[in-house]
Amino acid sequence: MGTDGSAYVRDQRYLTTRITADGRDGYPVEPGRYRLVVSRACPWANRSVIVRRLLGLEPVLSMGICGPTHDERSWTFDLDPGGRDPVLKIERLQEAFFARDPDYPLGITVPAIVDIPTGKVVTNDFAQITLDLSTEWRAHHRPGAPDLYPERHRDEIDAINADVFRDVNNAVYEAGFAKGQDAYERAYRKLFRRLDILEEHLATRRYLVGDTITEADIRLFTTLVRFDAVYHGHFKCNRGKLAEMPVLWAYTRDLFQTPGFGDTIDFPQIKEHYYVVHRDVNPTGVVPLGPDTSGWLTPHGRDRLGGRPFGDGTPPGPVASGEAVTAPV
Amino acid sequence: MGTDGSAYVRDQRYLTTRITADGRDGYPVEPGRYRLVVSRACPWANRSVIVRRLLGLEPVLSMGICGPTHDERSWTFDLDPGGRDPVLKIERLQEAFFARDPDYPLGITVPAIVDIPTGKVVTNDFAQITLDLSTEWRAHHRPGAPDLYPERHRDEIDAINADVFRDVNNAVYEAGFAKGQDAYERAYRKLFRRLDILEEHLATRRYLVGDTITEADIRLFTTLVRFDAVYHGHFKCNRGKLAEMPVLWAYTRDLFQTPGFGDTIDFPQIKEHYYVVHRDVNPTGVVPLGPDTSGWLTPHGRDRLGGRPFGDGTPPGPVASGEAVTAPV
Repeated sequence: MGTDGSAYVRDQRYLTTRITADGRDGYPVEPGRYRLVVSRACPWANRSVIVRRLLGLEPVLSMGICGPTHDERSWTFDLDPGGRDPVLKIERLQEAFFARDPDYPLGITVPAIVDIPTGKVVTNDFAQITLDLSTEWRAHHRPGAPDLYPERHRDEIDAINADVFRDVNNAVYEAGFAKGQDAYERAYRKLFRRLDILEEHLATRRYLVGDTITEADIRLFTTLVRFDAVYHGHFKCNRGKLAEMPVLWAYTRDLFQTPGFGDTIDFPQIKEHYYVVHRDVNPTGVVPLGPDTSGWLTPHGRDRLGGRPFGDGTPPGPVASGEAVTAPV
Repeated sequence: MGTDGSAYVRDQRYLTTRITADGRDGYPVEPGRYRLVVSRACPWANRSVIVRRLLGLEPVLSMGICGPTHDERSWTFDLDPGGRDPVLKIERLQEAFFARDPDYPLGITVPAIVDIPTGKVVTNDFAQITLDLSTEWRAHHRPGAPDLYPERHRDEIDAINADVFRDVNNAVYEAGFAKGQDAYERAYRKLFRRLDILEEHLATRRYLVGDTITEADIRLFTTLVRFDAVYHGHFKCNRGKLAEMPVLWAYTRDLFQTPGFGDTIDFPQIKEHYYVVHRDVNPTGVVPLGPDTSGWLTPHGRDRLGGRPFGDGTPPGPVASGEAVTAPV
């Protein structure tokens, strides 16, 4: 990654304490003990929202939802009555980070998992969180939960995840936050080079790895679903819209229409976050009315490629009470 | 038009002196006496570039081309050797306005027509300029020049021009320069309402009025050709791209591929102008690499609607020497 003055470099230091079945970091998996804090807007948090729902962890791991915007101090629970998370009883996610470390010097980010009894953030290491939900929380998965990180495909999933993180998930931010032309162009070129590769890869395969939905699809989905709404215009990733890449557009619609994906997406909150928070990119804070989202529910035709979305498992049931998005497509 | 504090209101005061066949304003039509000053970037100037070329006025009305960017003081001749217009011998278009009026208080805009002997701007009244090229300069039109403002259709052309100015040409600026959400949304809604009407109108008609290219098509074209490159992202006119409105996209490609239209378009200069000059919209000045422009030359299929592009006339010949765009599609 470029490190010249005009390039955006993501701070990748997180609280890496893990919640595990054996509790080796001091935080054993335990029903009702932890709260997953997310924002609908954030693609990194969106991963954990999807995985939690696909695995049916709602009864054992509750979820707090921050509003789409935040100031320089932190994400807030402004969507909740009284502006306070009903379980953690805090107004700002920052408070849970400071409970863990009064001098916490890094970014206050979602997703974060908070230990409810102490009010302390255990981890905000988003990449590990979803893998641990798949592997460490297995005893609490719903009957029929899919295996999103199957042993026999882990090398392949890890390799694709690395490429997708560097060239897609993070590259859109590098393009959008670049302060100079060169840094922007590097990010743009690697992004579209990778999207072209993925377009070809997915032309004959329904999912990225094997014939079922895996962690790799979830990580790609959360960026692609935001592409036309925010990355194309706001972040200048504008060679073309997702809707102009036929394979990726059909692939993303296929996932969107799969229970557990589209039902986690709130486009107005996504747009409000990016356009209101990034005043250095969009000084007025005006939020675009477009794009038209009616296309998300059109037939995708991907069934002809076969595939077994949930493998030997089953789709998740209805969205948990109180967790429906406020602005479904 | 809204006049609340957050709405953009175009200053529509111009130098309205006219160059006429009878010279009643003191400026008679005269070969070689005047210079049309434009910028490739500007849609208002683009009209006059197209009309001049369709009518074959190049030998009698020379053209100076300002660069795509300018500072708060004025458009400059930075594309010319030494940064100076070779005929007017000035560096900034401002100088020609100040020659006319040392206290000129309004915007320094293109297109402007300058009286070469005195170095004074005669007019920058863009809407009248093209009509006068069609009607007052008729004695100097090339053989086979089309009638872009035919008498029998003037009422209809004027009515469409008024709608298109208010709801398309100017509305994209109102959307992009809005300082508040309400002003933006009003502009967005009237823009797309009008584009929907035009999409239907043009579904069965090759051109806006009659069966030939008229002034009305030229005025709509210069905004539509810029739509995906700048208005969709930079100005948040993003319900969909032009490329997602099948009729308007085919209509615009048809014109683009007609001699006198696409050969006046320089997409890099268009993008550079909007993204570099409007720092209040795009603080970094980074210019997007997209969109992909290869689609402009694809078949449009509009021939099946019939129509006689140049009526009883003929297409213009090749682009005049020295006037080819530097970055053709």
